[in-house]
Amino acid sequence: MSTAEGPGARAPGLHGRDHAVLTVADLGEEGLLARFAPLLPRAAGEVVGTGDDCAVLAAPDGRYAVSTDVLVEGLHFRTDWSTPEQVGRRAAAQNLADAAAMGALPTALTVGLAIPGTTPVAWVEGMVAGMGEACRECGAGVVGGDLVGGRAIVISVTVLGDLQGRAPVLRSGARPGDAIVHVGAPGRSAAGLALLSAGIGDGDAPGPQRRGQKPAPAGSPRALDVAATRAEARACLEAFRAPRPPLEAGPVMARSGASAMMDVSDSLLRDGDRIARASGVILDIDEPGRGRGALASAMASLVPVARLLADDEAAAAAIARTWVLTGGEDHGMLATVPAEILGAPAGGTDGLPDGARVIGHVRAAGDGESPGVRVGGRVPETGFGWDHFGG
Amino acid sequence: MSTAEGPGARAPGLHGRDHAVLTVADLGEEGLLARFAPLLPRAAGEVVGTGDDCAVLAAPDGRYAVSTDVLVEGLHFRTDWSTPEQVGRRAAAQNLADAAAMGALPTALTVGLAIPGTTPVAWVEGMVAGMGEACRECGAGVVGGDLVGGRAIVISVTVLGDLQGRAPVLRSGARPGDAIVHVGAPGRSAAGLALLSAGIGDGDAPGPQRRGQKPAPAGSPRALDVAATRAEARACLEAFRAPRPPLEAGPVMARSGASAMMDVSDSLLRDGDRIARASGVILDIDEPGRGRGALASAMASLVPVARLLADDEAAAAAIARTWVLTGGEDHGMLATVPAEILGAPAGGTDGLPDGARVIGHVRAAGDGESPGVRVGGRVPETGFGWDHFGG
Repeated sequence: MSTAEGPGARAPGLHGRDHAVLTVADLGEEGLLARFAPLLPRAAGEVVGTGDDCAVLAAPDGRYAVSTDVLVEGLHFRTDWSTPEQVGRRAAAQNLADAAAMGALPTALTVGLAIPGTTPVAWVEGMVAGMGEACRECGAGVVGGDLVGGRAIVISVTVLGDLQGRAPVLRSGARPGDAIVHVGAPGRSAAGLALLSAGIGDGDAPGPQRRGQKPAPAGSPRALDVAATRAEARACLEAFRAPRPPLEAGPVMARSGASAMMDVSDSLLRDGDRIARASGVILDIDEPGRGRGALASAMASLVPVARLLADDEAAAAAIARTWVLTGGEDHGMLATVPAEILGAPAGGTDGLPDGARVIGHVRAAGDGESPGVRVGGRVPETGFGWDHFGG
Repeated sequence: MSTAEGPGARAPGLHGRDHAVLTVADLGEEGLLARFAPLLPRAAGEVVGTGDDCAVLAAPDGRYAVSTDVLVEGLHFRTDWSTPEQVGRRAAAQNLADAAAMGALPTALTVGLAIPGTTPVAWVEGMVAGMGEACRECGAGVVGGDLVGGRAIVISVTVLGDLQGRAPVLRSGARPGDAIVHVGAPGRSAAGLALLSAGIGDGDAPGPQRRGQKPAPAGSPRALDVAATRAEARACLEAFRAPRPPLEAGPVMARSGASAMMDVSDSLLRDGDRIARASGVILDIDEPGRGRGALASAMASLVPVARLLADDEAAAAAIARTWVLTGGEDHGMLATVPAEILGAPAGGTDGLPDGARVIGHVRAAGDGESPGVRVGGRVPETGFGWDHFGG
């Protein structure tokens, strides 16, 4: 496997010609599409479904939300790291989350798929099934798409959403005094990617011990720790491979009166910075390494996972903190919320969706201060996370 | 250039690292997106534009049409055959045509773009400008998208359309007795591709003579023929590189009462067959090699272009006929129309859009006869044209 191609080098053999395996080229476009149909749920608002030049969807409130996201084999997923079902779920999830982050109910996807002719039909069917499953769970349908050849697998998904009569929740609405609220488990996806990059997968990860350690006797505190670490590591791997964004939290947050919202695609810092700049304010996110807040707790649960990759306790803490702040692709909901809609007692989240946690506050930019993100009151010392070209 | 990769092998040098050229990786995602913004028209029904998790579009009649199409470098276009503007125009055109073929007004595109980091920024800007220009001409906007790395250029476009209160025109509505109507120049795109595949481009195509012929004296009949051939060949090259589908014909045809409609993506035969099977009827398309109808005329104008590639007159005629019947990517509008809406005299097209021509008729399938396409009353002897995997 070539390291020059980064974390997503092609799975050995997936596109290799094996005459025992039915490939995309064997079946052809129409044959493949016929196999997909039973895997894909219909949209509730479907007026015309797949099979014509366009699908036609109902827009009950006279508007609709739309967004497009692309996943590339070798860059966003690896076929030797994820099952096809996981890849499909991930492709769907990151788009569904975009609709939810506007406060919209995701209603439908269309899918543009470029795949090498040598790809096994079973892989593509699995991917489509995973996508269909993620849609079914939130009531969305798959209403169309295109299927073409290509050198690597590229999955371009467009999501359509229904605002249900509400105003869309933009990035630009955060106001001084708002609380910053997050729903999700920040850093888990980045931790999952780090584990896979270090060669730690399901079978061995986290093994009963790090290299050189002895297994803990059953029932000992270390054995408990190992079991908890294993569960957390599994959750991290799953978050990377097949994220399950808190989609229902988007519309609930919109109903509650959230002033700004995004799903965390790139990182808490980068996406928080986008809200801050669009709104002309400072988003001051709690320092994960301090106190007992939601981010401290997220970091604490990642430290045992980070230990699998770190030489000492300080390094493990630093890694876990980096995952929480700069890890992308969690697709948690990041919102700002006027203080008055937080439930009593002060700082509570009664009016907000399940799992909502306050992770900071919004303040006005001072004299000569540029709008942007802060961590524990300070300008972040590190990069913000993911850029698609490393630029 | 590898022939194993077919008609779209990578342009020599486009992705090669040339340190004098500003590349996508140099600029990064946000830098690129900032450059695109001024190139892209806004949609008329734009409630929220680019820059948030989703765009929000108005759906005045409570429904909207949506479709996704993918273009892959090396398969659908070659960067040494087409300018970036042409590639962008083509990507937009084939999607805009899908909306028009439902009878909808295309209102907006979203674009999912995978591009190697080594791609020159100027190429991507040109492509986006071509896309923007095609949208501007028909009143559509570009409301969002995604930009990621990749091994080859993949352009996935989603079109959104407004049915303006009309019923969508499906594939399944053709009825016995309907006329088959086409708007466009069938075969031109296939002829353009054939010219480029034979190494005949703008500079030399069609040159003043075929290899071995002497130039014609100015003013001679052959010189006139050469000039006409050159003009037609240029039109063919342009139709392949940057098609301009008759978008306005779609809604006009829908208003006129067309019973079924598609844009010709794959070929008259394949797309005609799709309408026939969806409608449970026979679509009998005129034999282009006979009579004086619209297809005979389309074939006649392609014969001089085919001569540039053929050994004798019979071969040229056969090639031109194949282009007309099995050539794809013209994106003309192919519709069936109840006889009563054809204008007087019988067979006229007064009620139909400019350029509409009758090219056949619909009849019921006889006993034991399967619905499908016919040419001059006979089952077509050849393949139907394009399949994306050659399957």
